[in-house]
Amino acid sequence: MKGTVLYGPGDIRFEERADPVIIKPTDAIIRISAACVCGSDLWPYRGINPIEQPTPMGHEYCGIVEKTGSAVKSVKPGQFVIGSFFASDNSCPNCQNGYQSSCRHREYVGDAQASLLRVPLADGTLVATRDLPSVEQISSLLTLSDVMGTGWFAAVAANVKPGGTVAVVGDGAVGLLGVLSARQMGAERIIAMSRHQARQKLAREFGATDIVTERGDQGVARIMELTNGIGADSVLECVGTPESMMQAIRSTRPGGSVGYVGVPHGVELSGQELFFAHVRLHGGPAPVRRFLPELIDLVWNGKINPGKVFDLTLPLDQVAEGYAAMDERRAIKSLLRVGTL
Amino acid sequence: MKGTVLYGPGDIRFEERADPVIIKPTDAIIRISAACVCGSDLWPYRGINPIEQPTPMGHEYCGIVEKTGSAVKSVKPGQFVIGSFFASDNSCPNCQNGYQSSCRHREYVGDAQASLLRVPLADGTLVATRDLPSVEQISSLLTLSDVMGTGWFAAVAANVKPGGTVAVVGDGAVGLLGVLSARQMGAERIIAMSRHQARQKLAREFGATDIVTERGDQGVARIMELTNGIGADSVLECVGTPESMMQAIRSTRPGGSVGYVGVPHGVELSGQELFFAHVRLHGGPAPVRRFLPELIDLVWNGKINPGKVFDLTLPLDQVAEGYAAMDERRAIKSLLRVGTL
Repeated sequence: MKGTVLYGPGDIRFEERADPVIIKPTDAIIRISAACVCGSDLWPYRGINPIEQPTPMGHEYCGIVEKTGSAVKSVKPGQFVIGSFFASDNSCPNCQNGYQSSCRHREYVGDAQASLLRVPLADGTLVATRDLPSVEQISSLLTLSDVMGTGWFAAVAANVKPGGTVAVVGDGAVGLLGVLSARQMGAERIIAMSRHQARQKLAREFGATDIVTERGDQGVARIMELTNGIGADSVLECVGTPESMMQAIRSTRPGGSVGYVGVPHGVELSGQELFFAHVRLHGGPAPVRRFLPELIDLVWNGKINPGKVFDLTLPLDQVAEGYAAMDERRAIKSLLRVGTL
Repeated sequence: MKGTVLYGPGDIRFEERADPVIIKPTDAIIRISAACVCGSDLWPYRGINPIEQPTPMGHEYCGIVEKTGSAVKSVKPGQFVIGSFFASDNSCPNCQNGYQSSCRHREYVGDAQASLLRVPLADGTLVATRDLPSVEQISSLLTLSDVMGTGWFAAVAANVKPGGTVAVVGDGAVGLLGVLSARQMGAERIIAMSRHQARQKLAREFGATDIVTERGDQGVARIMELTNGIGADSVLECVGTPESMMQAIRSTRPGGSVGYVGVPHGVELSGQELFFAHVRLHGGPAPVRRFLPELIDLVWNGKINPGKVFDLTLPLDQVAEGYAAMDERRAIKSLLRVGTL
């Protein structure tokens, strides 16, 4: 098969790789229908995370089960499935507590920008749709593998409640789907922080009621103005830089919550500032598996259409352009068509 | 009147000071029945917080209302009252959200180790008991002014639930009352971290089911052993040092909560470690006012007896010995008798 490998900063290659095989009886092989490029893929692509050796890429995926190991019971060949970037057994105490991305037996799934993928712990990781989806549904189902599940987790972690006031820091795909999540959860006011017209437009379409273009201290001041000097009940931090994290914390009211899902890079928090800010902080790698059944239903029933975040669709062999377009912010998110579906 | 003033590290003086007077119509003057020394008083006493000028001390208090300003409606002379170290209007949005210690009009009350005290925003700050308490009740009622309210907030912030597993970092008075709070909230297992026999004994009396004497990484390892490698559901951080904070975070299970109430000194948190720890973090200066009515009831009805944390009782004029005994860990907490009650 062919798959995507990162050789160094900006150096994405689509090249021949060995077909994955069943290694453990709990594995499944799936034939990818669609994959995509994640904002977090840009960290190594930009050389901010060091690349020590050629590294297969991709951790967002959906597709048709091709083969299952002898112990796999819950999915079978021919089914359309979605899984998370962390394979999980869905039975250990952390999974039972809803933190499948901290599963005690988790394995990172990192080779999904390819035509075939081995998924470990298939029973705990993959969730099948009731039927084969239409071509139109695939992009939205694909988002559930990470980007939508992550935006949703940001909103859950930020305790978004019906009637609440929400601010979203970051207008990447996760932030935009955080807006959609907050709307779905019944937030009354949703302030999207964005200075890019196309993203502002999508944010409004997803349910944003206000747009703030200012950043940093000025962005915080604007949120304060919009909330009578109190701050937002819930703030979704969807970037991961020191600036975005502080912007999120300082935009939150005392007793309010920051849900942070941007993988932190260089973020150091002052205990004393946090203490006097009185905010709640929760985040981490989204336990996507927890949300899959509910989110699949919402997509299947047409209640949400998160696939709209894909503004660039390419065949898999043009994956390098998918990275470049996101890196240069020409695209919000690149979908890679793989299978025939 | 006479009151307590800190002149420099270790230099506590009990000296003549001007009687407090009503400055604003919302003020009340109370005649202190009992005050005490707080763990946080030891930061400046030890010179860790710089002392720039002679500083009046004391922020835990209860007593009899002596006089009220013309606008005060909810308390009247002769009543026994308890208030918080932050005066609050109890009506601004932050107060309504239960964060009275972030009241938009808060004022620090810092002159309570004295015979008379001016309390600003008396209506929002002071809560009266139904009758005058007995001498035996006063020590427990006094704790509600800060130390018990703070231990209670640590447990609330750490989401202590019936049946849950709780660890408490810090065996000072706040930590010990965190144990009592967790017990009162129905926690099944309460692990107190302490290496001092008298404190271990009191922790057990307050409801601790396990004692861990190890600290730092070894303390974390011991908590992991006791929780089948998962970590505690709720961890109360009641110290405020970098070591205690990391011990708390690392003792918490993914999705579990750290409630931190030790005023942070030199604490810097790595965003990335927090992210992958998957813990919830909440804390800050306890909104004592929120809890006063409920905690007064619990004390009044004999359900809790937090006054047991006082293992040294002195007349107010021996306040310097009250500080020294706590500083040298000869006493857990020093009560200062003031009035005739």
